Formats: sequence, structure tokens, C-alpha cells
Amino acid sequence: MPDAPVPPISLLSRIDHVGIACRDLARAVALYQSTFGLVLAHQERNEEQGVDEAIMRVSGAAAGLAYVQLLEPLGPDTPVGRFLARRGEGIHHIGYGVSDITAALASIGATGVRLLDARPRHGSMGASIAFLHPADVGGVLTELVQAAP
Amino acid sequence: MPDAPVPPISLLSRIDHVGIACRDLARAVALYQSTFGLVLAHQERNEEQGVDEAIMRVSGAAAGLAYVQLLEPLGPDTPVGRFLARRGEGIHHIGYGVSDITAALASIGATGVRLLDARPRHGSMGASIAFLHPADVGGVLTELVQAAP
Repeated sequence: MPDAPVPPISLLSRIDHVGIACRDLARAVALYQSTFGLVLAHQERNEEQGVDEAIMRVSGAAAGLAYVQLLEPLGPDTPVGRFLARRGEGIHHIGYGVSDITAALASIGATGVRLLDARPRHGSMGASIAFLHPADVGGVLTELVQAAP
Repeated sequence: MPDAPVPPISLLSRIDHVGIACRDLARAVALYQSTFGLVLAHQERNEEQGVDEAIMRVSGAAAGLAYVQLLEPLGPDTPVGRFLARRGEGIHHIGYGVSDITAALASIGATGVRLLDARPRHGSMGASIAFLHPADVGGVLTELVQAAP
């Protein structure tokens, strides 16, 4: 995309999380606890996205919260359910922290990358999130995350 | 694994990087620059791993360096080459920062997770790295990274 506008500074402030699809959330939580000593920081159901999720904290507030987001689908006919059927368990997406998600979406959309969410929606722990089309980001399902104030 | 020893504290200090397999490194670098404004911090060839790689900085030293590692295979008969043939472009692995990789490998190996590298080897920017078997980590190719001193 040679004519795409180049943002003058990075839109991304940190790697917020890596989303991992699993078939059994309790088993995945136990694996990350017993193997790596990660702490289960939060758990919630997101009906809109069709998942039960567990937040395993990797680093804390001082260095910017970063976490592993374990995702068990609520059924086979959900995005994560279809991912599991197609690819099996594994890394599902990456989430980057942004300071202003509305501005970031406008800037990224202007480069020609398709937005799966034109407007931010509800994510983990009260964050505002939006996904970008993986076909326009080198096969990577990419999420923007603006943390709750 | 109910009898596995539970480490008393987290072995992982941060999300160090996400490794992304691509077919054309220059094109992937340009995509991350033009879409997100990320800076190309480093580029190197790792013959041992069969890749040309580019390090796109997401966050800097203050918050702990975190980056996107773009990986183009040196040929089809390499780990990343086989990954591309099987799955296409996309997220290949996740790398976590550790303070003592030898101690971390011993602790993780004791839980029953198989180590692809029993001893650390050479990674990006002089780091010591080792991979864990994805089948024992919920389908996730997992790398430990001890940064160069």
C-alpha cells in the first residue's frame, strides 16, 4: 500500500494480551497456574462474543498490565467455536493497548485495513475493544484495547 | 495434572513478543509501519532457526521491551516454512520474558511439560531462548526469553 498515510507515531502503546482458544477453561487455567505460576486475575462470560474467559496476569500495573486471555466458546457456532473446529486449540488473536480507540480506528481504517468493529464494543474488565480484519493484517486477528478508566 | 508441583510465584515476568510468520518480510515490515506506526528496531538472520526476522517495537524499555517479531523462513524445509505451508500467514508463537531461563526450564520441565530445547540457545538480539512443546501448552508454541545482560 505505497500511498497509505504513515502515522507519525505508534498507535500501539503495549501488548495488552494474547487470546488463546481452549476447549476446557478450568483445565487451561490449571495448566497456566501449575506450569508458569500465573495468577487468575479475573473471569467473566461475554455473551456478545460467545465466550467464557479467564484472565491470567503475566505482568502487573507497574509495567502495564499484560495477560493471557483464555477463551472457551459458549458453543460451536461462535467465532472461537469455529476457530477450534478449524484449527484446534492455540493462539487466537493478539490485543494491543491504545490510548484512544476511536482515534486509532479512524487512523487505521484510513490506511485501508478493514475494521471488523467500526465502533468500539465491550471487552474484558470494562475495556473498549475493536477487531481488525485478519486478512488485512497478515493473517493475524488483531484487537485494539482501550482499558477502562 | 493434579500432582504437578505448583510454582509459588510466576516464572514469567512479561509478554516479550509475539512471533508472526510471513511470506515477505519487507512487505510485513511496511504493513506494521504504515498501519500502526511501529518502528523497525532490529533485523537479523538466524540460520539456526532458519529465519530472517524483523523486530517491530511496541513498547520501550520503561515498560519492559515488547515487540512483534516478524519471521520469514529461509526455505520451505524450516519450522516457519512448514508452518506457512500448513496454516498460512499468522501468529506463530508467543515469547515470555523470564529472569533466569535455566531455572525456569528446570521448573517447567518438572511439571511434565516437554522442552523442545533442554538448554537455552541463541535468540534475537543476543537473548537466550528455549521453546516448550505446544502439545503440552494447549496448542501454543511457547518460548522463554532471557534478555541479553
